[in-house]
Amino acid sequence: MSTFSPLNPHFEARVRDSFARQRLMETIGAFITSVSPGEVEIELPFSEALTQQNRYLHAGVITAIVDTACGYAALSLMPEDSDVLTVEYKVNFVSPAKGERMIARGRVKKPGRTLAVCSGDAFALIDGKEKLVATMLATMMSIRPALPGATSL
Amino acid sequence: MSTFSPLNPHFEARVRDSFARQRLMETIGAFITSVSPGEVEIELPFSEALTQQNRYLHAGVITAIVDTACGYAALSLMPEDSDVLTVEYKVNFVSPAKGERMIARGRVKKPGRTLAVCSGDAFALIDGKEKLVATMLATMMSIRPALPGATSL
Amino acid sequence: MSTFSPLNPHFEARVRDSFARQRLMETIGAFITSVSPGEVEIELPFSEALTQQNRYLHAGVITAIVDTACGYAALSLMPEDSDVLTVEYKVNFVSPAKGERMIARGRVKKPGRTLAVCSGDAFALIDGKEKLVATMLATMMSIRPALPGATSL
Amino acid sequence: MSTFSPLNPHFEARVRDSFARQRLMETIGAFITSVSPGEVEIELPFSEALTQQNRYLHAGVITAIVDTACGYAALSLMPEDSDVLTVEYKVNFVSPAKGERMIARGRVKKPGRTLAVCSGDAFALIDGKEKLVATMLATMMSIRPALPGATSL
Repeated sequence: MSTFSPLNPHFEARVRDSFARQRLMETIGAFITSVSPGEVEIELPFSEALTQQNRYLHAGVITAIVDTACGYAALSLMPEDSDVLTVEYKVNFVSPAKGERMIARGRVKKPGRTLAVCSGDAFALIDGKEKLVATMLATMMSIRPALPGATSL
Repeated sequence: MSTFSPLNPHFEARVRDSFARQRLMETIGAFITSVSPGEVEIELPFSEALTQQNRYLHAGVITAIVDTACGYAALSLMPEDSDVLTVEYKVNFVSPAKGERMIARGRVKKPGRTLAVCSGDAFALIDGKEKLVATMLATMMSIRPALPGATSL
Repeated sequence: MSTFSPLNPHFEARVRDSFARQRLMETIGAFITSVSPGEVEIELPFSEALTQQNRYLHAGVITAIVDTACGYAALSLMPEDSDVLTVEYKVNFVSPAKGERMIARGRVKKPGRTLAVCSGDAFALIDGKEKLVATMLATMMSIRPALPGATSL
Repeated sequence: MSTFSPLNPHFEARVRDSFARQRLMETIGAFITSVSPGEVEIELPFSEALTQQNRYLHAGVITAIVDTACGYAALSLMPEDSDVLTVEYKVNFVSPAKGERMIARGRVKKPGRTLAVCSGDAFALIDGKEKLVATMLATMMSIRPALPGATSL
């Protein structure tokens, strides 16, 4: 389905290396299940430690994995020396985040020189079936650490 | 500054009890610092375990505390038997989430019978000064568990 | 592609009648090109009178047609006596709104008893090819005028 | 209240000149009522030609004036040779857009080298009193036409 050509031949290693440095992903128990050009998938097993007052996963946790999937989907299409930064996102929550685990999928909707627009979804896996839990529309920014002033918005 | 009259005289206890059941807040180390009608403040000490790839707090963590502050700001104005649910939010990230701790403030911009519109900000405390890190615009929903079908959007 | 079953057998007439009462659509020259359960398409010929400072269609005009497409996509799945109201939306603009005409498509992503989550896109038709101009994620609300208090959020 | 120092001494003329080239503003009858560094106000008299199905002003029209106010609030703080472009916005609608006229206020919440985060509100003037109709959180981008490739996102 993905029709993007990556600028960085090592895009998958780039994404996996950066993900491995996200201490939060380790803390909550999330891991990457797939990386392709413009698309990244992340899984998160359910954990009581991550819940809100009704024992569903907290909206912030769902947001964290969809944001990470969208950010790395964007990074997968960026030049080799880039880093990615979340400019903003919007998330709609459509059903309770319960089930054995969550699957977050992020994809680039429109790549750009500086900004990439991404969409992402989180699904709960309940009795082997995926149920939509949340949907995100996000703006990601390419940061070139080598360029002067580039880390500033 | 707040000019709302709470419908629930025990609004502060209601908010603090519900917050205490949010296992995620305990897991990340966040706590409530103030509850007034339509306004809630939450603090989060910096922790390496919650960072993204550049050692700043992850966007999802910042979102979690601002969402919680906004949600409980909304709940503070709801009738006694209500629960609150996040319909959706949008967050802009404006500077890196670093510093000794984060302060999230949520307030109700427009209360409503079913939906409340809230705005929230997260500030980093750096050398005793607050710096804006993120800003949220959110829609919260009042859920009346006693009413049939009420838990469905 | 649409897999929704309409609750109102006259959903298409309901949508077209309501659209015909939107004076703004007439003012800007927009018209409906298709209505199916959970999906509505609207077209807008380019007009100089609707432009911003660089002679592209104004973001507000693009938003108006995508909002209308999303709102009526939601209404197409609602009970016969419902009206629809826009709770909120977020729009990303990804390329200049120029070309012979614009095509807005709105679809329901998650229907609900009270709220429907919709996504929509606007495309510019340039030399017979569609180019993505903007993308929306929206929350629509079902209003039942017959129910007491129902017109309040 | 505004505490921004404009980079362009002619910021007000810059904003008013650009606004005058927005044909849509003329078409709907909107005009600027104030320009200060980081803040712009726009008024729109009510007109039947701009309504939705219930004779309220269409959400797209409200969005158009708040977007314009936010965009020019951002432009007022940009260097002399800049243009401004809307990256994205989110709008919540909180009460019906009826009344003698609408007042849109946009202000910069966080200026930046490339991106500015703005917030805006629309108020209906009803019997001489302002009532909140909609609230926006937006990302604006500085475009430097003199720089190669600068018009691309």
